[in-house]
Amino acid sequence: MKIIITSGGTSEAIDSVRDITNKATGRLGQVMAERFLEAGHHVTFVTTKHALKPQPHDRLTLHLITNVTSLMETLEPLVKTHDAIIHAMAVSDYTPVYMTDFETVSESNDLSQFLTAHNAETKISSSADYQVLFLKKTPKVISKIKKWNPAIHLIGFKLLVAVSQQELFEVARASLIKNKADAIVANDLTEISADSHKAYLVTTSEAIQTETKQGIAEMVLTFLKQIEDEK
Amino acid sequence: MKIIITSGGTSEAIDSVRDITNKATGRLGQVMAERFLEAGHHVTFVTTKHALKPQPHDRLTLHLITNVTSLMETLEPLVKTHDAIIHAMAVSDYTPVYMTDFETVSESNDLSQFLTAHNAETKISSSADYQVLFLKKTPKVISKIKKWNPAIHLIGFKLLVAVSQQELFEVARASLIKNKADAIVANDLTEISADSHKAYLVTTSEAIQTETKQGIAEMVLTFLKQIEDEK
Repeated sequence: MKIIITSGGTSEAIDSVRDITNKATGRLGQVMAERFLEAGHHVTFVTTKHALKPQPHDRLTLHLITNVTSLMETLEPLVKTHDAIIHAMAVSDYTPVYMTDFETVSESNDLSQFLTAHNAETKISSSADYQVLFLKKTPKVISKIKKWNPAIHLIGFKLLVAVSQQELFEVARASLIKNKADAIVANDLTEISADSHKAYLVTTSEAIQTETKQGIAEMVLTFLKQIEDEK
Repeated sequence: MKIIITSGGTSEAIDSVRDITNKATGRLGQVMAERFLEAGHHVTFVTTKHALKPQPHDRLTLHLITNVTSLMETLEPLVKTHDAIIHAMAVSDYTPVYMTDFETVSESNDLSQFLTAHNAETKISSSADYQVLFLKKTPKVISKIKKWNPAIHLIGFKLLVAVSQQELFEVARASLIKNKADAIVANDLTEISADSHKAYLVTTSEAIQTETKQGIAEMVLTFLKQIEDEK
């Protein structure tokens, strides 16, 4: 199979010197890529500058992206030419629109003006005691994938923090349906450490549990082979 | 001399999965550290996980920090036991206080309530179209250094973006006086590229210009030796 793996976390610029970053080491993406290469597949690895990368391999192609816009531009043509995508990247939910001092905001009668404002300075000045940053939602990349290529197999990821197993499954199944994914790997940040990584492969009918990054790689590989065989 | 070099950029957490990062490769700090080691000095290098680091050396000590609070905790004891500090790190000016959806903010009669609010969730939810992030000023680390150790030599850095040389010098001299620095290295982001880095060593009486990171390292080394000899 020709498989895209997205890994790492996107960054959205506030100005020319500051950005908002989704923290992600890229370790899971690296482990999955190495497992899929070992199993004989072609891996197109879409990641960020600082994230961990798999060892070079003749069936591995790397693409570096920065923000959500560059991720979308990179992914669209790739999605159209691959059999499956494992979308493990932590994608920014919001991107900065405008930043100004608190006084300006609190004196305004119409806060909606700030939702369409633009910072003229390339480095936002820093004298005020408090600043206010307005952010808008980014496009949901995962929701585009099946639109770009209805035939691609899509494995999404859902990371929550300190929730019940029930809530985790509900949120994962909602994402599964909404994004027409084949499965969602659901995990909780409080259950991830250096040597363990609890996760569930959630489909409409079941949820398979594993305890390590290697286990996640194996579980996703088995699942993709199974749905590819059923085609 | 025993010299502290700070390098890279600090990050301030918005929640458990997002942070605001000051972009900095750490390349200049790396070049300076290697030049000072070559000249026989002891270098204590304070940096961040992703920033570039000097080659290991028996006169080099590394300290990793994350946010402004951890930078201050790490620096205070070091400043008291070193002869000089070259403070090249890009330090966050603001740290997140509270993030909520735009509607909640626009319906509020008293925005100042958000300046003391705390997010209860560990991962801020992302359903609203617009979010508002309130930030407060961080302590100015450079202003603490001479208070911690009045005898230490302090070289500060000032990075502006797309300003005139006059404005750059004015801002650098204001920082020089305010922070009791011995010199400020002033530079403009638009004049920094992979192989050139225009900068000025600004003191009360003069401004020496250089064009590369190696030039900056040499200029700072010469200046520090000169003021150390004059002691």
